[in-house]
Amino acid sequence: MALPPNVNATDFNSALNAWRQTVGAEWVFTSDEDVAMYRDAYSPWWDEPEERVASAAVAPSTVEQVQAVVRTANQYRIPLYAISTGRNLAYGGSAPVYSGSVVLDLKRMNRVLEVDERNAYALVEPGVSYFDLYNHITEKKLALWIDPPDPGWGSVIGNALDGGGGWTASPFRDHFGAHCGMEVVLANGELVRTGMGALPNAKTWQHNRWGFGPWVDGLFRQGNMGVVTKMGFHLMPRPEAMQMMTVRVSQEQDLIPLVDTLNLLENQHVVNGSTQLSGSFGASPAGAPATAWSAQAPVYGPERVVRAQMEHCRELFSRIPGARIELGDLTRVPLDEAALARVRKVNFGIPDLSTFGLLGRSAADPSPQGGHIDFSPIIPRTGEAVLEYARFYRENLAAVSEGGALRFLGPVFMTNWDRTMVAMIMFPIGRDKTHNARMRAAFVKWVELAAARGWAEYRAPAGFQDVCAKSYSWNDHALTRFRETIKDAVDPNGILSPGRYGVWPKHLRNA
Amino acid sequence: MALPPNVNATDFNSALNAWRQTVGAEWVFTSDEDVAMYRDAYSPWWDEPEERVASAAVAPSTVEQVQAVVRTANQYRIPLYAISTGRNLAYGGSAPVYSGSVVLDLKRMNRVLEVDERNAYALVEPGVSYFDLYNHITEKKLALWIDPPDPGWGSVIGNALDGGGGWTASPFRDHFGAHCGMEVVLANGELVRTGMGALPNAKTWQHNRWGFGPWVDGLFRQGNMGVVTKMGFHLMPRPEAMQMMTVRVSQEQDLIPLVDTLNLLENQHVVNGSTQLSGSFGASPAGAPATAWSAQAPVYGPERVVRAQMEHCRELFSRIPGARIELGDLTRVPLDEAALARVRKVNFGIPDLSTFGLLGRSAADPSPQGGHIDFSPIIPRTGEAVLEYARFYRENLAAVSEGGALRFLGPVFMTNWDRTMVAMIMFPIGRDKTHNARMRAAFVKWVELAAARGWAEYRAPAGFQDVCAKSYSWNDHALTRFRETIKDAVDPNGILSPGRYGVWPKHLRNA
Repeated sequence: MALPPNVNATDFNSALNAWRQTVGAEWVFTSDEDVAMYRDAYSPWWDEPEERVASAAVAPSTVEQVQAVVRTANQYRIPLYAISTGRNLAYGGSAPVYSGSVVLDLKRMNRVLEVDERNAYALVEPGVSYFDLYNHITEKKLALWIDPPDPGWGSVIGNALDGGGGWTASPFRDHFGAHCGMEVVLANGELVRTGMGALPNAKTWQHNRWGFGPWVDGLFRQGNMGVVTKMGFHLMPRPEAMQMMTVRVSQEQDLIPLVDTLNLLENQHVVNGSTQLSGSFGASPAGAPATAWSAQAPVYGPERVVRAQMEHCRELFSRIPGARIELGDLTRVPLDEAALARVRKVNFGIPDLSTFGLLGRSAADPSPQGGHIDFSPIIPRTGEAVLEYARFYRENLAAVSEGGALRFLGPVFMTNWDRTMVAMIMFPIGRDKTHNARMRAAFVKWVELAAARGWAEYRAPAGFQDVCAKSYSWNDHALTRFRETIKDAVDPNGILSPGRYGVWPKHLRNA
Repeated sequence: MALPPNVNATDFNSALNAWRQTVGAEWVFTSDEDVAMYRDAYSPWWDEPEERVASAAVAPSTVEQVQAVVRTANQYRIPLYAISTGRNLAYGGSAPVYSGSVVLDLKRMNRVLEVDERNAYALVEPGVSYFDLYNHITEKKLALWIDPPDPGWGSVIGNALDGGGGWTASPFRDHFGAHCGMEVVLANGELVRTGMGALPNAKTWQHNRWGFGPWVDGLFRQGNMGVVTKMGFHLMPRPEAMQMMTVRVSQEQDLIPLVDTLNLLENQHVVNGSTQLSGSFGASPAGAPATAWSAQAPVYGPERVVRAQMEHCRELFSRIPGARIELGDLTRVPLDEAALARVRKVNFGIPDLSTFGLLGRSAADPSPQGGHIDFSPIIPRTGEAVLEYARFYRENLAAVSEGGALRFLGPVFMTNWDRTMVAMIMFPIGRDKTHNARMRAAFVKWVELAAARGWAEYRAPAGFQDVCAKSYSWNDHALTRFRETIKDAVDPNGILSPGRYGVWPKHLRNA
């Protein structure tokens, strides 16, 4: 049996016994075989000494059990790593950031506590997946949509807390931004409710996010200040229809008004779907300059409003010289069989797993174990920034890719990440340690090159969170130090998810 | 010269001298006459011993000066109370929550640092008023709107940090929610930039609010964890047009589908303006049951989209039996002279002061010094909640108003406060101490009665922040205690705005 770092066998056994009392012996996992289930199947360090692995796992089923488990960990100074469904794949899966942590597995807490159609919200537990919430809504025949990310087996709470986004309409696509109210177990076992949840008898916990006084919810985003046990989300009323416009330009300088027009339409809240920008340079590892750019602008809403919005889009895009505009068919919701077969389901609020097949089994790496690392820096939403990024990519590709020997997928420009784009490049990885090591080196190189230009990640795999956090270094890492001050105060023994998103407790900070 | 509490004359003089060195002697105010300028002209405790007053004031003009002023305060343990333009009227004005604090007056820091039309944002300093930002945008002829609250002389930053809202369209009407990026001076004088501002060379500080890792911005909302010296805001592209629909129902039971329809339209992001719900009961101090309810649903956007949205609204509202629908004229933007004379300016992004005259000089209290206290509890956005609130108001009015002797204005139901309503009642106050004392008692009584039903304030005057914060008491005030833990860590000497929104530093907590 592995021991957590700095914990002796006696203390660990005492903790394990206490946890067995709390959750039942069958929900405390210590055998190599059981603990291996928590490995990150797509770890870029798979089977290498640096792979981040758990020492054990404990799976409570109630909030009271979470409180008791955390209190025991605090007593024996045992690092926990909280996961929801454990499907945070490409970002570390269910494996801890700090090797040797005990996984606090919340997947048994999988109740959909409330879905309200009239006020369009849900309150869920961490183990609720997008499939679970979708099924609940479908069974009850509620006219509400969820906003699924790529794989539907992920946790609604987990994805939001990791800063993930989805594929339907703004503002629901920003999963953390669309949340409303939390319940959190603190490191001392205390239970806190945020926003209107702090008001006894309030019926507005999932209606109004702010409440009264300082708003603490943000601390739990990409954070480790507490264990979220309940979270509310604003849901989108099921729209009547969706329609998408595609606009192509062939001159590089036309990209600038293309992005400006997209900006205006998004900031006007006319275009509300997940827009994307594609340039032909992205597909070519040789890095030839782009000869064509296209933008996708989807609109969701009442049918007649969608049609008016599309007319407005056409009017604005038509002002760009040489723009070729293509208006897709209007798709009515709920989808009929024919439409269901044709569309990308996640764009219609239906979770699935199809994206997985695409990326996990690429031509470059057909291994079924193949995963990928995402390099997804935030860049400004301007044509100039896209051209600068494209130049940057072309100029550095040969050096980073070992002269083209390493193949990346992308870049793909997802243009409504708040009001920025993320320019995503995917790095296929698998079971070949040499290949993985080269991909890791390439990833770190891109991170460093990009940071020098003022571009950095919105999210990162567990193993690269330190590297990425270090980019955010303004004024001698003042923001990191402020977060550390808070971390030390609310979790003085540093037991909750040490190192998550670059926030380490005091005793591990300079290790 | 008054002394701050627990500070001796020697230390205070040392601090004043240090501040004079820092900001220039003419910007440190200690005379009774000067310090009186920081009194809250609308204090409900005007000229009574409980009135919260400053001991002195210091007005830096740069971030470096703010850092130095805060360091000095920290050295001598002197409580500061940070204000922006000092116009937080009805909520305490420029007077501190903790009497004897030194006002840290930021009104000299009044630069509009950046307004970007293409990406629709502004970066401002705390002293920038809505008038300042409007004038800047107008002079540069930018096609952008600001979102003014009632009085235009308030600070853009100050209003957002106090949880204020405005009168144009969502999501811009939620001033804190529409912010993007902060610069903050901490209690130790350190300077932090949040979000993408933590990334050196980033051009996306005002584009993407989240950045990487735990999001700390919320701590500064209705808070006292730092002094905000810069703040960015997403702005609304100037819309083409606005149109408003008014819907009336005369049967009480029709209120339920009326609010449900409004909910759906707002959650669909079809209706995006500041909706209001009015019931005739509100105007009658006798508290007769409402015989008519009306809802206002304004829409901003491209002209053809507004027309389509209004058709959609008509279709949905028409399903309510007995609904009388009235469609206002479509108003094109920018406004011509005739329109400008007709409209309420703040609904068109134009700051003014007209609201002031209305409330400050009511028939009940014509004194030009007359102000008001707002009782604005958050209630669910359902017809049932409105009817429950109306019953509650009628049932308690006689007792709270001393049998009708006290006159309140309202309630007014502002229906898109995030996804809730605030049911606002205004309490006229003035220079009559007996009258003010009765109004204060009535306010506290309403707060307590409402809290028992799960309704509490979104915002409160300085003198009532403790009373209102205490309503948010779930699990033995767990959220307050969590905030106190953070406060003690980031401001161990408790010098920054002690008591603001109920958050007191350790040494004052049980006083």
